[in-house]
Amino acid sequence: MVICKKWTLAKPFIGKVTPDNFKLVKEDIPEKLNDGELLCEAVYLTVDPYMRIGAETGNAVGDTLFGEQIAKVIVSKNAKYPVGSIVRMHAGWRTHTLVKDAEKEISRSAEMGDLPLSLMLGAMGMPGMTAYFGFLELCQPKAGETVVVSGAAGAVGSLVGQIAKIKGCKVIGFAGTEEKCKWIKEELGFDFAYNYKKTDVDTALKEAAPDKSVDCYFDNVGGMFTVKVLTHMKTFGRVSICGSISNYNDTSVPTGPLPFFSILKSQLRVEGFIVSRWYSRWEEGETAMLRWIKEGKIKYKEHVTEGFEKMPDAFIGLFEGRNTGKAIIKM
Amino acid sequence: MVICKKWTLAKPFIGKVTPDNFKLVKEDIPEKLNDGELLCEAVYLTVDPYMRIGAETGNAVGDTLFGEQIAKVIVSKNAKYPVGSIVRMHAGWRTHTLVKDAEKEISRSAEMGDLPLSLMLGAMGMPGMTAYFGFLELCQPKAGETVVVSGAAGAVGSLVGQIAKIKGCKVIGFAGTEEKCKWIKEELGFDFAYNYKKTDVDTALKEAAPDKSVDCYFDNVGGMFTVKVLTHMKTFGRVSICGSISNYNDTSVPTGPLPFFSILKSQLRVEGFIVSRWYSRWEEGETAMLRWIKEGKIKYKEHVTEGFEKMPDAFIGLFEGRNTGKAIIKM
Repeated sequence: MVICKKWTLAKPFIGKVTPDNFKLVKEDIPEKLNDGELLCEAVYLTVDPYMRIGAETGNAVGDTLFGEQIAKVIVSKNAKYPVGSIVRMHAGWRTHTLVKDAEKEISRSAEMGDLPLSLMLGAMGMPGMTAYFGFLELCQPKAGETVVVSGAAGAVGSLVGQIAKIKGCKVIGFAGTEEKCKWIKEELGFDFAYNYKKTDVDTALKEAAPDKSVDCYFDNVGGMFTVKVLTHMKTFGRVSICGSISNYNDTSVPTGPLPFFSILKSQLRVEGFIVSRWYSRWEEGETAMLRWIKEGKIKYKEHVTEGFEKMPDAFIGLFEGRNTGKAIIKM
Repeated sequence: MVICKKWTLAKPFIGKVTPDNFKLVKEDIPEKLNDGELLCEAVYLTVDPYMRIGAETGNAVGDTLFGEQIAKVIVSKNAKYPVGSIVRMHAGWRTHTLVKDAEKEISRSAEMGDLPLSLMLGAMGMPGMTAYFGFLELCQPKAGETVVVSGAAGAVGSLVGQIAKIKGCKVIGFAGTEEKCKWIKEELGFDFAYNYKKTDVDTALKEAAPDKSVDCYFDNVGGMFTVKVLTHMKTFGRVSICGSISNYNDTSVPTGPLPFFSILKSQLRVEGFIVSRWYSRWEEGETAMLRWIKEGKIKYKEHVTEGFEKMPDAFIGLFEGRNTGKAIIKM
């Protein structure tokens, strides 16, 4: 027997996420496997803001919280995955997983070479594909255009800004600390970086994108911030709605000036997306990201929390702006 | 000399439009023309809600209000347009116009045959092209899909609903009187018609499009109505933002629950437009509309106001829901 630890939903997420939303549970997993089966042990896990929405719609109290992980095969009855193989799968917040059907449960990743395995949960995983497809497909950026990114020091936003630079755009990022702003400007090459807690978005955009010259907006935060950005957009501007982290902790939908007339007057295209719509093109996205990482055009930072026990705390930290770059849990 | 009457902006539109926003002015136009010139007399003029936005951004106090008209050539020094020719032009709210450069100032229309000339300002003019391109290009409707139209008995909305029926969609219209609802349902073939003053949009859509099954929404009204429709849309729904007539008379932008999270969760595409973006494809739209009208697939109604003096009143009526179908001014 292997003892698996898993985090389950103790009570539904309403308002602020707190430790008592989570309950650590133990489960026995037999080590005697059937043909084709694998027993895997988590190496890296991930926390991402979208898990909150997912938990609200997909997890009942008592369910294991869902999410992706990188794991190592520790017992194998499947010749394709010998002991020691590294796999990626949607196994949820759990330390051990019995894989019955590897073809269905395990997702492959591009050949990582010398790169850290945790990248498979970041720039080479869901956040990377979210940035790659969500920005390029919906914003359709052209060289010379001006791009605004909110949540710009986060796992997705930091990649979007760098992809925009690769495409020859002027990039304006908003983040919540001086340190984050320094990182995206000095290390990642953003043209402008503003601490939204110190500089109002209107003031910032009047300076960085005068005369309503924003072409593309990649939105991770929603709410009033987004209402304001829309008023700085150029005719035929494109908006990609990726996240709404400014109001995940609200118990009701935030109110504000409705944006429909801004959308009409400037002929904006505003589109929301969930990255799964591009699953069939995953390989294309991974290949591009891998090339850019190897060429040094995409840099990344990980905010590593050590220990499975601290997973809820790392998740709570996302809504408090504690992470710069990708939040990773290391076993 | 010909005495031209014209309506000018007496004071800017702020809040409700009232008769004292307008001033009737007389202007002398010489009848002795230079080679190539024409003198035209208005036959039909048009009032449309968008003129309010246009006046706010393009008209100073004292300017002639802008708009399209159908006119007859009464003096000609241009062989291409002999006396009696019927022309269409953006001459503004005026009875007589000196045309210096016919190539630039006059727009041609498809051959109308026995159809009334006023159609060139309705189904065969800007409202028709607004419905044709704004709906088909941005909503991309497919047979079997469910389409919601607000302002459904108006010049544009009534055409959108009929185009949606031609494309094989289920069509749900919202209008402001029982009589309008009866017209769009019984005459135009909408599947459902609701008087939004009597039936809340949530109640209506739970009945007509249960389980969030709206695929396309063509929006003429904006505001809270639109916030609510978005919550009834299917994943990958498309929204075409054409107008915002519910709040043109407001002095501030209306507030309400912000829609970004709805847009994200259902992966909606919301796009605003102004019909001028499709000028280069006008002929395609006119040809299609003309064919459908001749085939009896598109019906139209005109709300005719007789007399140039009543033009401001007809314009004010648009914001009070007085017209069914296209508002036309007959000289």
